[in-house]
Amino acid sequence: MTYKLGLIAEKIGAELIGDSEIDINGINSLSKANANQLSYIANKKYIDSLVNTNAGAVILSENMKNDCKTNALLVSNPYLAFAKVTHFFKSNNTIPKANNLNIDPSANLNNAVLGPGCVIGKNVLIGKNTTLESNCIIEDNVRIGNECHISSSVIIQRDCQLGNNCTILPSSVIGSEGFGNALDENKCWHRIAHLGKVVIGDNVCIGSNSAIDRGTIDDTQIHSGVKIDNLVHIAHNVVIGENTAIAAKTGIAGSTVIGKRCMIGGMVGIVGHLNITDDVTINATSTVNRDIKKPGIYTGFFPLMPHNAWKKAGMWLTKLDKITRILNIKLKDTK
Amino acid sequence: MTYKLGLIAEKIGAELIGDSEIDINGINSLSKANANQLSYIANKKYIDSLVNTNAGAVILSENMKNDCKTNALLVSNPYLAFAKVTHFFKSNNTIPKANNLNIDPSANLNNAVLGPGCVIGKNVLIGKNTTLESNCIIEDNVRIGNECHISSSVIIQRDCQLGNNCTILPSSVIGSEGFGNALDENKCWHRIAHLGKVVIGDNVCIGSNSAIDRGTIDDTQIHSGVKIDNLVHIAHNVVIGENTAIAAKTGIAGSTVIGKRCMIGGMVGIVGHLNITDDVTINATSTVNRDIKKPGIYTGFFPLMPHNAWKKAGMWLTKLDKITRILNIKLKDTK
Amino acid sequence: MTYKLGLIAEKIGAELIGDSEIDINGINSLSKANANQLSYIANKKYIDSLVNTNAGAVILSENMKNDCKTNALLVSNPYLAFAKVTHFFKSNNTIPKANNLNIDPSANLNNAVLGPGCVIGKNVLIGKNTTLESNCIIEDNVRIGNECHISSSVIIQRDCQLGNNCTILPSSVIGSEGFGNALDENKCWHRIAHLGKVVIGDNVCIGSNSAIDRGTIDDTQIHSGVKIDNLVHIAHNVVIGENTAIAAKTGIAGSTVIGKRCMIGGMVGIVGHLNITDDVTINATSTVNRDIKKPGIYTGFFPLMPHNAWKKAGMWLTKLDKITRILNIKLKDTK
Repeated sequence: MTYKLGLIAEKIGAELIGDSEIDINGINSLSKANANQLSYIANKKYIDSLVNTNAGAVILSENMKNDCKTNALLVSNPYLAFAKVTHFFKSNNTIPKANNLNIDPSANLNNAVLGPGCVIGKNVLIGKNTTLESNCIIEDNVRIGNECHISSSVIIQRDCQLGNNCTILPSSVIGSEGFGNALDENKCWHRIAHLGKVVIGDNVCIGSNSAIDRGTIDDTQIHSGVKIDNLVHIAHNVVIGENTAIAAKTGIAGSTVIGKRCMIGGMVGIVGHLNITDDVTINATSTVNRDIKKPGIYTGFFPLMPHNAWKKAGMWLTKLDKITRILNIKLKDTK
Repeated sequence: MTYKLGLIAEKIGAELIGDSEIDINGINSLSKANANQLSYIANKKYIDSLVNTNAGAVILSENMKNDCKTNALLVSNPYLAFAKVTHFFKSNNTIPKANNLNIDPSANLNNAVLGPGCVIGKNVLIGKNTTLESNCIIEDNVRIGNECHISSSVIIQRDCQLGNNCTILPSSVIGSEGFGNALDENKCWHRIAHLGKVVIGDNVCIGSNSAIDRGTIDDTQIHSGVKIDNLVHIAHNVVIGENTAIAAKTGIAGSTVIGKRCMIGGMVGIVGHLNITDDVTINATSTVNRDIKKPGIYTGFFPLMPHNAWKKAGMWLTKLDKITRILNIKLKDTK
Repeated sequence: MTYKLGLIAEKIGAELIGDSEIDINGINSLSKANANQLSYIANKKYIDSLVNTNAGAVILSENMKNDCKTNALLVSNPYLAFAKVTHFFKSNNTIPKANNLNIDPSANLNNAVLGPGCVIGKNVLIGKNTTLESNCIIEDNVRIGNECHISSSVIIQRDCQLGNNCTILPSSVIGSEGFGNALDENKCWHRIAHLGKVVIGDNVCIGSNSAIDRGTIDDTQIHSGVKIDNLVHIAHNVVIGENTAIAAKTGIAGSTVIGKRCMIGGMVGIVGHLNITDDVTINATSTVNRDIKKPGIYTGFFPLMPHNAWKKAGMWLTKLDKITRILNIKLKDTK
């Protein structure tokens, strides 16, 4: 894939300073890019790399243009412009012509492209220009919007709904039964059948091997613009607000409601029935066990130490309450 | 699906106070239910919702019946009765008639229903009224009991055994090789072939995208009544006692034995070769690194704080040992 | 499978003391093994079991041979010898003859054995004696070396490369899009297309339901000899050095570089853009949020406590900074 620099500038709305006719056939970092590659700089601390780059062109903002010795693409947000440009150079996997599909005759697939091994249930409705790769299972009554990309081995269970322009990465499961069980008098668990579904908005991305459970009575809701990484668990009846991002391996327990524009780090554990307001950042591996009413950055993990130091710190930590009594420190003293 | 209220009362063994002839076509919360929906109350703190509900009927216990203005279904355990009723209103996905199955002729499937894309190995034995959805892989010598439901893309590897009435949710893997490796003199790892299997009892449920490894020599054992959520890892030779429940994202390392009726929260990490007795509750995101000999509730995670407060608390925590020396506090003082 | 003891000794390079003609048909622990089973001892603390064993033969090292009353296989590293012997007794699943394959004509599969439901893309190159079980998706331009074993439902996405003698356990995803997103002025996320791939060396093993993302521009790299367990997440541009082992449920965030011969415990969270040197051990469930420049053992998790003790310890922990001020302890005092 080769593009004239002028065409790239036009497509991303950049002001081009330099030669619009040079050919760009890839993207690379400032230090590795060659004369036919495009690079970008989004942070002043890499300014030396900009000065010394051999890149054919660099995406940058106004305040760095004087340090650019090569062609420049001026934009207000270089990282965003870089994100847009990456898509020009992406190679897609070919979807083989499927010869063993199981499509219920009541399904309306529009012009969807389906890979081999897909199974499409009753009354499924798929919008325009949507693609399903191989071995996807789309159960009865599922609705998928326009321009979606459903990767291989994704399973979307009965009644669930996806908006437009959603991407589901391989092997994720949407709409499986929630983990709701009632104890009887013999201490045996009885499973609750989950009557709700999962409703997903527009422009949502879900990573590989993630699992999003359907609601018990009401629906689990993933609002528009949400980005979810790999191996994430979202339990029954959770609601995730618009444009919130959730990094890999995080788990959110049942009925918790998360606001808009939150950034949840990797391997965060959020317990059930909580409310987290808008614009909250949770650092990686923290546990959230209470409501968060105030936007801001929150953290909670034990600091890493050499093992022997950890043993001592942990041991004294378990004795903190006794130490405060020895020292005669009262809770009110620490207010 | 519509049922006379009298029929529902009969099926769940409830005493009906009111009109047995009304039609019930769904379940909803007290505040949202309409005149043809059933609701339930299991906790006195929602008593105002009970008083004001428009539900056609409410499942409740004796001590709340005076506050019920609508038809009542009296039971001793309302949450359990609710769990049972949900199944009356569950819609199931249609399993398409499979036209491309790979079934070894030595397999005995009884009357199992199989979706498309299933692969059934040699000498597989499946009990009565068991269902396998699409793309399941059942390897050689696997035994599955009666009335089981194996969801799409589940993989059950050679020799593993499931009892009756088990449910495996999509994309879980049962019986994969354990993580056992031996170091040689060049610091290279050599994999151990795992000769044991996974043996699962009756009434076990396993969530989506979970992984349960086969034993090294002996078997990994999941006893009857165990409920396991999504994205759970259970390593080689682990034994889980009857009616224990394990929430999502938990990991249990090799050879650990967990007792009966335990409740393991989400994202709990349990290290290997431990013994945890019966009736232990571990709160979410805790790490268990020692035997637990006494029933009770255990917790271990760092409290969530605003990030700046966390930095200070963490910094002083790393210095706790030195602080105790400055203060001249001895371990024996804290006994 | 039955072998003469002499043949086993020869295959693992052991010195046989005893009867080379006895038949060995399995492996078992010292306390359970019978006269036709082989056992092993790798640790002096099990010496009583050795003395009392009924095993037909025991793998052990020189310093324990005097306590062995049965046939002995003398080796320098008994656990490694045991690992090798396990493979003699492993039963493999039969791979059914596939009758519904989708193989692009440009693919070169050598003599690969493929199970049903596999999908092989354009220009795929597979080495000699490699096996793919059922429902594997191998996308365009993927290269897989010799003697690899790709388990059922594994997905290897476009352009990724595996060396020789690799094992990928079921349902893992290699080469999915990384979690890279750029924010625009409306606080909406724009996905970055990932132009790099995943490059995996020789003798690598990856567990079930794991996910390894492709690089953004450069490649994600898993060097030779690395062993990765189940449900592990490895983000874009991570580099894992030779012979490093990573236990289940661990997550490694983007662009982190891990050295050789590290041992990363289960459910460890490693944040992005870090450097971890060679020969580092991280204990299970620790969080790594800084570079590690010195080999050694590191730990960081909150100790498990009875819940009420945890509440007190956590409460005082949040007040540690204030307590040090009350006590008038300065940071410099604790140096």
